[in-house]
Amino acid sequence: MDSKSSRKNISQAIIRRLPRYYRYLGELKAEGVERISSSELSSLMNVTASQIRQDLNNFGGFGQQGYGYNVEYLYDEIGKILGIDRPHKIVTVGAGNLGSALSGYQNFPRYGFNILAMFDNDEAKIGSTIHGIPVLPVSKLTSYIEENGIEIVILAIPKEEARQIIHTLEGTSIRGVWNFAHTDFEMSGGIVVENVHLSESLMRLSYEIANSERLD
Amino acid sequence: MDSKSSRKNISQAIIRRLPRYYRYLGELKAEGVERISSSELSSLMNVTASQIRQDLNNFGGFGQQGYGYNVEYLYDEIGKILGIDRPHKIVTVGAGNLGSALSGYQNFPRYGFNILAMFDNDEAKIGSTIHGIPVLPVSKLTSYIEENGIEIVILAIPKEEARQIIHTLEGTSIRGVWNFAHTDFEMSGGIVVENVHLSESLMRLSYEIANSERLD
Repeated sequence: MDSKSSRKNISQAIIRRLPRYYRYLGELKAEGVERISSSELSSLMNVTASQIRQDLNNFGGFGQQGYGYNVEYLYDEIGKILGIDRPHKIVTVGAGNLGSALSGYQNFPRYGFNILAMFDNDEAKIGSTIHGIPVLPVSKLTSYIEENGIEIVILAIPKEEARQIIHTLEGTSIRGVWNFAHTDFEMSGGIVVENVHLSESLMRLSYEIANSERLD
Repeated sequence: MDSKSSRKNISQAIIRRLPRYYRYLGELKAEGVERISSSELSSLMNVTASQIRQDLNNFGGFGQQGYGYNVEYLYDEIGKILGIDRPHKIVTVGAGNLGSALSGYQNFPRYGFNILAMFDNDEAKIGSTIHGIPVLPVSKLTSYIEENGIEIVILAIPKEEARQIIHTLEGTSIRGVWNFAHTDFEMSGGIVVENVHLSESLMRLSYEIANSERLD
């Protein structure tokens, strides 16, 4: 296994692809497949075999000539690289439609992404549970984070509110923010931000439609 | 304005950035800003001024030396490039938590993304409205698409169901699919697919956390 420092130069493109490797290997594992060659994985994932070899070489390889990759081993190793070999404690700020849907999303717990609470200012929601998750007042957010060792905060609130709350979050011990607010920001203190701009994804689809032709 | 064919070689990286330009220009426009230099836009967007000039040159420029960019004009032109200068008719397959939240997402109509109906097999949901949007049986999906000129289908269903439904959709006149199912696919007939893998986005955040250090 490479040390952290030797991984510093891994490109964003590879990091973007790693979860996809993880997903395909997870499916192969679930189907009972024990090993796979880079060319088989290549045709499955629609990526060239040489890219697969190059990508995985960044993390020490894992493959053996003439044998291919051990599916379970590679799955576990990529899980470690992605930091999902251990559970993550998460809270969601914003118990609206999107915040509630994300908090109850059934795919997350299987990867160890556990959403423990939602926070909202709406008196009608505070004290209730949504998808079994308690809704607490935003005034309790920082104390809840510290008392429960929360690592990730999901922001599912409008941009104006998000801009206010990030300053509060910078004073806590969280490690990352998954941001669905329609704004970009960076945070101090080494807190990592992953922005998900749903409207922009839909615009890219719109662009592709405008620049493609329907074939019948 | 460039013709379609001369835009063929625009990189995915630029296409990924265009909606972000559009968002920032929309905010400037809303604030009443009439013109902006590439260096001002650069510091606002945290992108180099030369990248901004290069990116926008792909579409014919729009800027004038010593004047900068006309905000409203550039906003409108990027809107045209993104194909959001006209409304899009959309339906959602899957009226679960995520499908409902996406269908009721308030940011979409302002860009002309209008979700007209949701489709589900759950008898308890069929005939109801969620966020004012009617829920119809999946058996009506293809006829509804043809009768209403639906252009985009949002898939918010599990991967097994998604794999089945894409074959049905290939026989319709839709132009694009916005896929939230936890699987990748391509479609025949020139139908464009934009995959949004939420779990993978959360894994990238987890990766960044595992490979960063909290600074206090």
